[in-house]
Amino acid sequence: MKQIIALLMACMFVSCQEKRQTGINETIHSIMNRTAIRNYHDKAISADTLELLLRAGMAAPSCVNLQPWELLVLTDKESREKVVRGLGCNDFVSTAPLVIIPCANMQKIFDGDTYNWMADLSAVSENILVAAQGLGLGGCWVGGWPNESRVSGLRREFGLPGHIIPVSVLPIGYPAEHPEPKDKWKPEKVHYNKW
Amino acid sequence: MKQIIALLMACMFVSCQEKRQTGINETIHSIMNRTAIRNYHDKAISADTLELLLRAGMAAPSCVNLQPWELLVLTDKESREKVVRGLGCNDFVSTAPLVIIPCANMQKIFDGDTYNWMADLSAVSENILVAAQGLGLGGCWVGGWPNESRVSGLRREFGLPGHIIPVSVLPIGYPAEHPEPKDKWKPEKVHYNKW
Repeated sequence: MKQIIALLMACMFVSCQEKRQTGINETIHSIMNRTAIRNYHDKAISADTLELLLRAGMAAPSCVNLQPWELLVLTDKESREKVVRGLGCNDFVSTAPLVIIPCANMQKIFDGDTYNWMADLSAVSENILVAAQGLGLGGCWVGGWPNESRVSGLRREFGLPGHIIPVSVLPIGYPAEHPEPKDKWKPEKVHYNKW
Repeated sequence: MKQIIALLMACMFVSCQEKRQTGINETIHSIMNRTAIRNYHDKAISADTLELLLRAGMAAPSCVNLQPWELLVLTDKESREKVVRGLGCNDFVSTAPLVIIPCANMQKIFDGDTYNWMADLSAVSENILVAAQGLGLGGCWVGGWPNESRVSGLRREFGLPGHIIPVSVLPIGYPAEHPEPKDKWKPEKVHYNKW
């Protein structure tokens, strides 16, 4: 009986070690396994999960910490159809239970900034997509700015003022497809200590 | 004795459940706890850990999957001093055991693209910083392009050709400071279904 207990305790120890190992790599796992998901189950995303995604987005770094972002969040059917009309493409976007459109607020950018806001809003977008992966969701990065036709279409559909620039369109839902993540590792693109 | 075994098994179950809960949130935790770290222990980053960071960077999404990036990786002292001379500021960068400079390769961008490459390279940069956080490291996003003086300084120091644009400079190391992450959650920046 003592041996059984010892065995069980050994199992617990190994299990904890394994979990710790898995744990250390879970962030890496989410980053490496994020891939474009365009088919979603017809299942709503809870308010708590949505808040985690939005908090993850707003945790992005920004130029001199100005946080020049606004998040347009679409959950109702009519809005999700508007976004497809605005984009003029990517019909699948309306089938996602959730669409987040990270926008730059040009009244809040660094004085004299030309394009640092594009870095800030891209970090917001990637944070949201990696967070979605970590929460068992799937999403896709559909480009907004600098595509003028998409930007003006989204402005028209949602009545966005001129200082609000939609930078990306992120449809998100529970994945109804499970494509292999692309292998993009190319060691020849790494340059050590010199060009 | 049966009760002891039952108790141990119950503990294992609870432990696994807890780990699973923690696990679910580890990606979110890394995203939410990433913050600028500018002080590093004098401890080298292993080749395996460095490869994870580089793989995380190259796992970023890109416009029509063109992956228009190159990663300049600085580990020797001379190169880390060059980068500070190139930037003309942010002296702390040379104290990091590792500096990664994600660059856009303008010969590999989408035909007619104006600035989608900025989104791609920003996603690379954020992936690397979130991965660093997940691996117990700390880093900082120092801007490159569109700051012309920094871009030309880095070009000069590293002999970068004209089609290579350094987008960010990421010093990374084991944190010798532990600042609280900024609370950037502002619910008033969320707009539901309409502007």
